[in-house]
Amino acid sequence: MKIYEEKRAPNPRRVRVFLAEKGIDVEFQQVSIMDGEHKTVEFTRLNPLQRVPVLELDDGTVICETVAICRYFEELHPEPALMGTTTIERAHIEMFQRQVEFGLLQPIAHCFRHLHPAMENLEVPQVAEWGKANRERALAGMDWLNTQLKDREFVAGDTYTIADITALIAIDFRKVTPIEIPDQLTCLTDWHKRVTSRRSSGA
Amino acid sequence: MKIYEEKRAPNPRRVRVFLAEKGIDVEFQQVSIMDGEHKTVEFTRLNPLQRVPVLELDDGTVICETVAICRYFEELHPEPALMGTTTIERAHIEMFQRQVEFGLLQPIAHCFRHLHPAMENLEVPQVAEWGKANRERALAGMDWLNTQLKDREFVAGDTYTIADITALIAIDFRKVTPIEIPDQLTCLTDWHKRVTSRRSSGA
Repeated sequence: MKIYEEKRAPNPRRVRVFLAEKGIDVEFQQVSIMDGEHKTVEFTRLNPLQRVPVLELDDGTVICETVAICRYFEELHPEPALMGTTTIERAHIEMFQRQVEFGLLQPIAHCFRHLHPAMENLEVPQVAEWGKANRERALAGMDWLNTQLKDREFVAGDTYTIADITALIAIDFRKVTPIEIPDQLTCLTDWHKRVTSRRSSGA
Repeated sequence: MKIYEEKRAPNPRRVRVFLAEKGIDVEFQQVSIMDGEHKTVEFTRLNPLQRVPVLELDDGTVICETVAICRYFEELHPEPALMGTTTIERAHIEMFQRQVEFGLLQPIAHCFRHLHPAMENLEVPQVAEWGKANRERALAGMDWLNTQLKDREFVAGDTYTIADITALIAIDFRKVTPIEIPDQLTCLTDWHKRVTSRRSSGA
């Protein structure tokens, strides 16, 4: 199998950290978005939506979408569990994963896509007002996450899960935007140190 | 158990149609968003993000987020399967569910939230330019979905799944926006008739 990805983009990193936590080794092939390699006929055949990451199995089966790829590996390699082991756990972890995705990662991504000059030719039209509105949404998302982390070690509870991965990558992706972590969000900062200290965060 | 929802909002309808397909009967309690009932202290305690739907179990456990709620019921009542029965099926259905959610439902929702006068006090700031950009994104999403439906009956394959539910509700939600289904998208129109003819679509 092979994963098509772009080393600098946030969604492929979600898959890399997920695989690193599970100790799974997969071949990666780089697709340069800045060079338009995601728009070639060959890549468009793999994913008509022209996005990375894409997982291609040995029999040619293609799975797109970060969380779908993660769930595929979770089922093949259940240990360590990153998406829960009971019905309630799985529902809660999916809830937090989605809340972080919609309330933090997406606002930060919109902020980057609509305000950063490097995205001028990739996000058309860039809507600066929407980018600025998302700075506020991202700050609200960080505030919410800080409150969640007041009484627990990880985003969804006592163990590290896919929700931490999404949150880690959102917070790190923030560095390419005009968003700082407010000083008073100490639970968020402490959590960020905890998850960054894991070996997987370098993936 | 009880589901807090808003009858007119698209996300709660995703859960209602999912439950109707499975023949599961759950008590619903209405939360009027227009009247600000999602912002009360009581409801904020249930979901700090102040969104519907919310599932509350008899022991007080709370599950938010449409797809997390659906997955909870899928595990409790596996038949009929709406999220797949094998690892590959589950990955593919999750892939399509997410592609429809990000590529169709979200653009249509942004179009509504940023262009409709009724949302003036709920979406602050309303960014008309972003709303208009999302009309184009929604049209691209419909075009993509029409192509997907050229060689199969349902969004993710030969059987009706959660991906059809997300797509059905996106297409219906379009009616409150200035987006029409282009005449040439006949596969999409035929599929929409098929899924609308199911009894669950009235949920």
